[in-house]
Amino acid sequence: MVSQDGRGTALQIRSLVTSQGELQVSLTRVPVPAPAADEVLVRVEAAPINPSDLGLLFAGADLSTAVQGGTPDDPRVTARVPEAALRSVAGRFGVSMPIGNEGAGVVVEAGSSAAAQALLGKAVALLGGAMYSQYRCVPAEQCLVLPPGATPADGASSFVNPLTALGMVETLRREGHTALVHTAAASNLGQMLNRICAKDGIALVNIVRNPAQVALLRGIGAVHVCDSSAPGFLHDLTEALSATGATLAFDAIGGGKLASQILMCMEAALLRKSTLYSRYGTSTHKQVYVYGGLGSGPMELNRSYGMAWGVGGWLIMSFLQKIGAAATAELKQRVAAELKTTFASRYAGEVSLREALDLGAIAVYAKAATGHKYLINPAKD
Amino acid sequence: MVSQDGRGTALQIRSLVTSQGELQVSLTRVPVPAPAADEVLVRVEAAPINPSDLGLLFAGADLSTAVQGGTPDDPRVTARVPEAALRSVAGRFGVSMPIGNEGAGVVVEAGSSAAAQALLGKAVALLGGAMYSQYRCVPAEQCLVLPPGATPADGASSFVNPLTALGMVETLRREGHTALVHTAAASNLGQMLNRICAKDGIALVNIVRNPAQVALLRGIGAVHVCDSSAPGFLHDLTEALSATGATLAFDAIGGGKLASQILMCMEAALLRKSTLYSRYGTSTHKQVYVYGGLGSGPMELNRSYGMAWGVGGWLIMSFLQKIGAAATAELKQRVAAELKTTFASRYAGEVSLREALDLGAIAVYAKAATGHKYLINPAKD
Repeated sequence: MVSQDGRGTALQIRSLVTSQGELQVSLTRVPVPAPAADEVLVRVEAAPINPSDLGLLFAGADLSTAVQGGTPDDPRVTARVPEAALRSVAGRFGVSMPIGNEGAGVVVEAGSSAAAQALLGKAVALLGGAMYSQYRCVPAEQCLVLPPGATPADGASSFVNPLTALGMVETLRREGHTALVHTAAASNLGQMLNRICAKDGIALVNIVRNPAQVALLRGIGAVHVCDSSAPGFLHDLTEALSATGATLAFDAIGGGKLASQILMCMEAALLRKSTLYSRYGTSTHKQVYVYGGLGSGPMELNRSYGMAWGVGGWLIMSFLQKIGAAATAELKQRVAAELKTTFASRYAGEVSLREALDLGAIAVYAKAATGHKYLINPAKD
Repeated sequence: MVSQDGRGTALQIRSLVTSQGELQVSLTRVPVPAPAADEVLVRVEAAPINPSDLGLLFAGADLSTAVQGGTPDDPRVTARVPEAALRSVAGRFGVSMPIGNEGAGVVVEAGSSAAAQALLGKAVALLGGAMYSQYRCVPAEQCLVLPPGATPADGASSFVNPLTALGMVETLRREGHTALVHTAAASNLGQMLNRICAKDGIALVNIVRNPAQVALLRGIGAVHVCDSSAPGFLHDLTEALSATGATLAFDAIGGGKLASQILMCMEAALLRKSTLYSRYGTSTHKQVYVYGGLGSGPMELNRSYGMAWGVGGWLIMSFLQKIGAAATAELKQRVAAELKTTFASRYAGEVSLREALDLGAIAVYAKAATGHKYLINPAKD
């Protein structure tokens, strides 16, 4: 399709929530912009469906109510957003939002600047937002050039998971901890964190939710793996915390008692080495950062771990802002250098923009289950 | 009573928990020590019963099971520590512990050093521990000399509440907040905090649990008072947070939903001023520090306030350690200078060491209710 200025239009996934609680996911046509002097036009070829993208795409809607609508040319999925979830999305009522935090593609057009021209034909990764689009026009400086031989699919997840995992280790260093705990640890991110910690010599305690995930992590060389579904979980966790001295945890779950249990076992491990009784507990600070919301329901803290503890939200973008541009650039350079090793991601499959709006596909990728991460390939028909 | 070295003995309250879960509170006789060169002997005349003292004294025992025992000369109270509370006091099983964080008295004997001699006859305050004793021997440098005209009763609470209240304001300044929230705000500490904030020009949102406490705080000039028992509580709190811009709260309660409600209302107040939707909420950090445990049961966090939030334990002793000796000395100097104004405490009554072991007295002071704070006067018979 060609627009009035002759540059044509391209497909993009949009998500909208009405104030009546209807979610509408659609495929729209948007103009293909011409890059300014310092910009490049990227043909997007791979964008992962991360849990954070699912949150924006489906807005907490009950997908068992999803209905396929529209036409083959103008597909549309609608679903109900439950009353309880509706308040938290009030800020986006009536706003048609593009989706897709990150992705990769090929630079097909470049502005006149030297920096932009240098990227022509290159495979680049972007943390650009709106990546579930056929084309994205962005400043050249936002592009991470993929190493020789790396495809857009290799580089699709260059930001969210790699920077989150590196940000966790960087947080550990900056806040003076020496070992780390991670929950939902068999995820793509969790496997990446295992590789980083192994390489950097940091002890890591992995918490998973079933024996299959224990086996998966053992298979990639993880030393400390605790199964929260096992009857001896609290004992196993205390042993692992005692062995590693971990006093910092990153929790992807949020809801329920797990964060409290981690703090409790950390304190129990510390008390083994302490000789002095204090009713305020040990003086060693124990911290859990919640970076995801896989577990619904409230978090319950029983506060049976003295007074030196903290729980809080943790967001990679806020963390990068705090550490500044130079420190962030260092982390990104490491991602590029180790893209096909430490930071390699695996996907269960690839869908086109149109296929991403198919109820059958949604039923699979919306689960955000370990081993079921999908790529969207907007260049695929 | 005179001991072998001719210096005699003096009374002291002790608390012990057996591994079978029996609490034993007793009055014992301990030798009166001779001060070393740099020490002074203080005849204790006033020591407050703070919530933190109650925690150590009664170890979470169920006081409805309390039994008066022993003899008039050797009184003793026993009670059952419930199974649930027992684990958290395992570190003190079988240890006979002296009680009483702070207090004041008169220096009746001094070591040979000039610093010690200078204190002879002076009224001094101490954060010495074991203050529920007739005599305490401490280094001269630990004494805070009370201003002229101040009695030991005036200076009994010179440390825990004043430093805690000042520590809250100091935390606000160091962590970049501009206004403060306080719960259980009608307490002695809460009233002190109102006077500090009024003097220092810091907006303070007081949260209390009944209309009588609202009236009490309004009576001392508090501007923002929210009653958590009122039907419009969440609305009132959001209004007060919006008016003040408070993003830091100190919570004496801990259990239940209050901390989560404070974070929720802080976020709602921030969203009023925000124009950009983000599914991660506003980027302004919202913090609740829990410094007490008036509310039993788990804390429930519903995490409906984005990702920029934190909850954690806060302990004045740890905070003073963090800010260092010089900054701590400045806070203490302010307490001494404003002892009879900003930092004045009120008590419902005074009991002797022996009376403190009376079941009738315990029933009153162990409630730790607003307006029922007691002083122990070990010099009283």
